[in-house]
Amino acid sequence: MKNVTLGIDIGGTNTVFGIVDEKGKIIFKDSLPTNGMEPAESLFERVFQVFDEKFKKFAADYKLIGIGMGAPDGNYYTGSIENPPNLNWGYVNVANAMKKYYDIPFALTNDANAAAIGEMEFGSARGMKNFIQVTLGTGLGSGIVVDGKMLYGHSGVAGELGHINIVKDGRKCGCGNRGCLETYVSATGIIRTVFELLASSRDESSLRNISFNQLTAKQIYDAAMSGDKVAISAFKYTGKLLGEALADAVAILSPEAIVIFGGLAQAGEILFAPTRKNMESNLLHFHKGKIKLIKSGLEEGDAAILGASALIWQELKK
Amino acid sequence: MKNVTLGIDIGGTNTVFGIVDEKGKIIFKDSLPTNGMEPAESLFERVFQVFDEKFKKFAADYKLIGIGMGAPDGNYYTGSIENPPNLNWGYVNVANAMKKYYDIPFALTNDANAAAIGEMEFGSARGMKNFIQVTLGTGLGSGIVVDGKMLYGHSGVAGELGHINIVKDGRKCGCGNRGCLETYVSATGIIRTVFELLASSRDESSLRNISFNQLTAKQIYDAAMSGDKVAISAFKYTGKLLGEALADAVAILSPEAIVIFGGLAQAGEILFAPTRKNMESNLLHFHKGKIKLIKSGLEEGDAAILGASALIWQELKK
Repeated sequence: MKNVTLGIDIGGTNTVFGIVDEKGKIIFKDSLPTNGMEPAESLFERVFQVFDEKFKKFAADYKLIGIGMGAPDGNYYTGSIENPPNLNWGYVNVANAMKKYYDIPFALTNDANAAAIGEMEFGSARGMKNFIQVTLGTGLGSGIVVDGKMLYGHSGVAGELGHINIVKDGRKCGCGNRGCLETYVSATGIIRTVFELLASSRDESSLRNISFNQLTAKQIYDAAMSGDKVAISAFKYTGKLLGEALADAVAILSPEAIVIFGGLAQAGEILFAPTRKNMESNLLHFHKGKIKLIKSGLEEGDAAILGASALIWQELKK
Repeated sequence: MKNVTLGIDIGGTNTVFGIVDEKGKIIFKDSLPTNGMEPAESLFERVFQVFDEKFKKFAADYKLIGIGMGAPDGNYYTGSIENPPNLNWGYVNVANAMKKYYDIPFALTNDANAAAIGEMEFGSARGMKNFIQVTLGTGLGSGIVVDGKMLYGHSGVAGELGHINIVKDGRKCGCGNRGCLETYVSATGIIRTVFELLASSRDESSLRNISFNQLTAKQIYDAAMSGDKVAISAFKYTGKLLGEALADAVAILSPEAIVIFGGLAQAGEILFAPTRKNMESNLLHFHKGKIKLIKSGLEEGDAAILGASALIWQELKK
């Protein structure tokens, strides 16, 4: 019998889960719509129905020894999901709910932290003890590892790099404040930047034919690759602000590396080059040239499951 | 025989040192001019001459079991002082140098970290596992405690909150960048603010009779206390920027409290009130009303010695 853990990642739209061994090999995986308007309990019910059915085939060879979960507003300390803005759940004590299905070790954290733990166990940050993982998705999430451990802070909610102020009185953020980093540096952020640039410049751009609600970060990337000036400027500006914010984060945390993960990270050098340049020029002298800026080493489709699974593997090793 | 440690704090002008017991009681203390233009070795020579002579009286009752040091650009990992801007020392391997005098456990960190450790062992942060200590002196230093331990990061130099950017293309900083927090929030920063306000406003002010080089933060405080509008505005602006920066630090670190230490902290509510207000209004919803903003619990004159001593006490307890 080989020990395995179940990793569950709850997203705003889909919930993915899978069985992962200690080396990060996914034995099997599946996904379901989250249906965030229905109670959390009904999602758990559906997940374990599918899981139990599938796991039967493997039960002779594998022993399930723990469950790890990444979820929006998942609190490591309380084992609860706390009023996630995109899910109509309120406060859910997940640690308790899980016992109904499997009374084995369980750990929960938010999705950005889970991604960082996945990176540390199975990805680009293997062997690192101090790094920052930045997830560029719809918003900007971050997971901070200090001295080999997730930084949770006093109340379990540290690592909200997406909500540091980067532009005074800047764009309105979902959190209620203005000028938060994620309103500029994220898939949504770069779309907003494109619309600013379309308004302020007179450059021709294929993006002038797409509405705000239709425009995607992928389209901006494709336009930039075909030489669209507005799209190229949008990536430059995004990298500039990300680089400036990372320099501040480095001054506070002194990490070995910054790992960039998520859809927008796929853009590669068109985003990384301005980020690196602006980070470097704002770093304190003793950090200059020493902070690695690297891409996630996890497959986009597997990262969420690996992160959630890595979380519980780390707990089991304690 | 009672165990004691020697705490040494090297400042730009004076070096203070003293013998401290495990409870933070200072048995004796003394100070010497640092004379930073002469080699570090000559300072150590003078310190131990005075110390050895003084300690003779106590040698029957106390056993010296460790030395802790706080120094500008002191690196915990390397035990070295690394090119401090205000001392003409270059790179000094202090851990080695100390062996000549006492071959006992030695630990070094920068002065702001030492202050934070002093606060954790003997001051306002006793019992706290996650807090930020901000020292408002000539510059702005900070020490960050995560999960009960100093945050040193990958290269031993974390916690440089004084060098996060707070004003885009703002005031020139000693570090070479522009707009760093300490160019606004520090004794020097508030003097610069007063001069901006004297230039931009037409308010009468007693501070109009003092030159830049003569003006002190204490004079600004006294003026504010007698109702001087410019001085009051200067404190408001200082607190505003400090509050905004602290909100960002809280988003990243999720501390239990922020402890304010140093000369400018003596200003009390005239600085704390705008800091608290602006921090609160920029905090993420789950932090609002929960982050304590407190004054250091250490006597200004003793804090440096207590911090340096606390550093080695913590090491000895490991």
